[in-house]
Amino acid sequence: MKIGVLGGGQLGRMLALESKQLGFSFAFLDPNPQACAAELGTLHVSEWHETPALEAFLNDIDVVTYEFENVPLALAQRINHACPLYPSLDALYYSQHRLKEKKLFTTLSIPTTDFQAINSRNSAKQLPQNFAFPFIIKTATMGYDGKGQYIIDSEATLNTVVDKLFATTTSDSPIDEAPYIAEAFVNYDFEVSQIAVRDQKGRCLFYPISVNHHQDGILKLSIAPTPSSLLSKEQQKNIELYTQSLLEKLDYVGTIAIEFFVQGDKVIANEFAPRVHNSGHWTQDGTTTNQFENHMRAITGFPLGTPKMFGVSAMLNVVGESIDKKVALAVPSSHLHWYEKDVRPGRKVGHINTNAKDFALLFEQINALNKALQTPVQLPKALETKFLEAKN
Amino acid sequence: MKIGVLGGGQLGRMLALESKQLGFSFAFLDPNPQACAAELGTLHVSEWHETPALEAFLNDIDVVTYEFENVPLALAQRINHACPLYPSLDALYYSQHRLKEKKLFTTLSIPTTDFQAINSRNSAKQLPQNFAFPFIIKTATMGYDGKGQYIIDSEATLNTVVDKLFATTTSDSPIDEAPYIAEAFVNYDFEVSQIAVRDQKGRCLFYPISVNHHQDGILKLSIAPTPSSLLSKEQQKNIELYTQSLLEKLDYVGTIAIEFFVQGDKVIANEFAPRVHNSGHWTQDGTTTNQFENHMRAITGFPLGTPKMFGVSAMLNVVGESIDKKVALAVPSSHLHWYEKDVRPGRKVGHINTNAKDFALLFEQINALNKALQTPVQLPKALETKFLEAKN
Repeated sequence: MKIGVLGGGQLGRMLALESKQLGFSFAFLDPNPQACAAELGTLHVSEWHETPALEAFLNDIDVVTYEFENVPLALAQRINHACPLYPSLDALYYSQHRLKEKKLFTTLSIPTTDFQAINSRNSAKQLPQNFAFPFIIKTATMGYDGKGQYIIDSEATLNTVVDKLFATTTSDSPIDEAPYIAEAFVNYDFEVSQIAVRDQKGRCLFYPISVNHHQDGILKLSIAPTPSSLLSKEQQKNIELYTQSLLEKLDYVGTIAIEFFVQGDKVIANEFAPRVHNSGHWTQDGTTTNQFENHMRAITGFPLGTPKMFGVSAMLNVVGESIDKKVALAVPSSHLHWYEKDVRPGRKVGHINTNAKDFALLFEQINALNKALQTPVQLPKALETKFLEAKN
Repeated sequence: MKIGVLGGGQLGRMLALESKQLGFSFAFLDPNPQACAAELGTLHVSEWHETPALEAFLNDIDVVTYEFENVPLALAQRINHACPLYPSLDALYYSQHRLKEKKLFTTLSIPTTDFQAINSRNSAKQLPQNFAFPFIIKTATMGYDGKGQYIIDSEATLNTVVDKLFATTTSDSPIDEAPYIAEAFVNYDFEVSQIAVRDQKGRCLFYPISVNHHQDGILKLSIAPTPSSLLSKEQQKNIELYTQSLLEKLDYVGTIAIEFFVQGDKVIANEFAPRVHNSGHWTQDGTTTNQFENHMRAITGFPLGTPKMFGVSAMLNVVGESIDKKVALAVPSSHLHWYEKDVRPGRKVGHINTNAKDFALLFEQINALNKALQTPVQLPKALETKFLEAKN
């Protein structure tokens, strides 16, 4: 069976690498002729619209999936006519637009941040009536890794940002599809991810929840499982239920990631990604069947594999730097995943997974791995202490 | 770093698949333009002698290894001049010739079967003076999976076989390099494999020992670890010591497999393979770092990874048949490795690994996996009982 992947970056690369043993071959569609997944299959170079390369890609494959959620919706519909597309078009529709995504969360009674559409200069200026400073303005589409976000801490900042955002807009009539969204600022304790997978028969599996730590707006560290001293069994159960309701609503097939803010005993959905996710990379070396293989099993109609963990796990992202691979590989139970991309500032070029029998050992290994990195990863001390106190 | 592999079969394919995440790329040298590893790198199609394709291959790579031990020695020497070759030429030299291999075992005080060179019709006819019937005659080179072996149970059989073997030989003067070898028949209880790996600094790591079961002369099932009720701690320790002395003698770098016959409290070395081995495929899903990744870490100068097991493991070989993949993947903690080769009788086309917390569960899973196979795998009942009685 030949599988098409929209996008040929590291996620596409790992989707292929982690499932090729099942007997699949791969084709990738990507505008970049240097796409790093190309080594694992046929690369069809095409922009995200109808092209002869897209035709060739569609003629080459049996089923199609995507490694990023910003595939233009009309194009995705066109592709789905030619070839079964998983996850569903609905998953793309909602995840491409923060406002639709937030409304969907609300419809499904999944707690999320307070939000408001910004569809005109005027609606932006009225925001302080509903939001206390600071709040956040985000682009409704195409934002990732903290890009396209503005923290609004005063009337003055609001005016500056609004002037910038609407600089090219002369009319003040509301825009149909709100280009921006305001969200209340959540002073959360930490962020977690639920990685889950649903097969074509509707069976859902949930990976243990990870705690995520960002630096400069980019994920740097995920640790799993989340001990109940950090996230109560009830909170964890609720996260599973929210995730399940989303999967069912979207008639979802494949791997999904939902990020939640945790604030005391509250969990607040931030956003979901309809694909394998950076905060699930630890599953490659920390579970019986990882997020990539399970995504592929799901979209090809195979039964899902066990998501059971071997112990405790961490994933360290390598962002915009080369590392000392020898130092990294000398750390026990550690695994390097290098994407073979040119190293550029802010660019994800690899990650390192490490496993241990308990969190004390895991943090020792994280410290040892930090010696291989130019920019060490450091969990806030208070959070690290909570892990170390956990009985896992 | 680009790694050259002599041979592009399933072992080459898995060497690439299981280590590509470290950032390696691959070139394969194989006479078969359909070699199944070709998907994972550049395929240079060449017979096993000097060709322009061999030149192109050598210019393409930084380090070279092999997936099969019958690379002509002179060619291997030529290759080693152009590019560092691991494991050593010595490893090839001894493993290519059963007589040299047996003599090496003897030199290293590794117990092995009684053997005698056959370098003429005459020397063959004198064998019954040293061996009781039945004994075995094997080709000294190129034998695998039971091919080129003759069980000699009487003077009559001996005469028939000798006539066949020396049919084209008119002279009766001894041949310098003995073409055949006689070995005493060992009525062993079962066979085990030690998979081990040695790095460039001489550090050795040993995987848990597996029990191997053959059907029709081909490996069908490996189970690990071998419980001490089957193989005493002392026997296991001896196997490690024998393996270590062999690795050191050969100044070996990479993964090795040595097969031993177990007969009561004796262990008897059968043969070694200077490469990753079918009886080590269970390490892919049963250990922290598998035999393929560790081979690649060794030959590229990286530190070795932990060979620790997660529980108990089995590997079922798929030989000459297609299987019901859905049935196989529905079995918990089971992983399919499909080589994308045309299915032909007697041809290894894939394997299935399965893991469990204990042997009772493992055998349940093996039984469930058998439903996916046309030719079920069955360990002799007495051996299965020994596993089930073991406290692991």
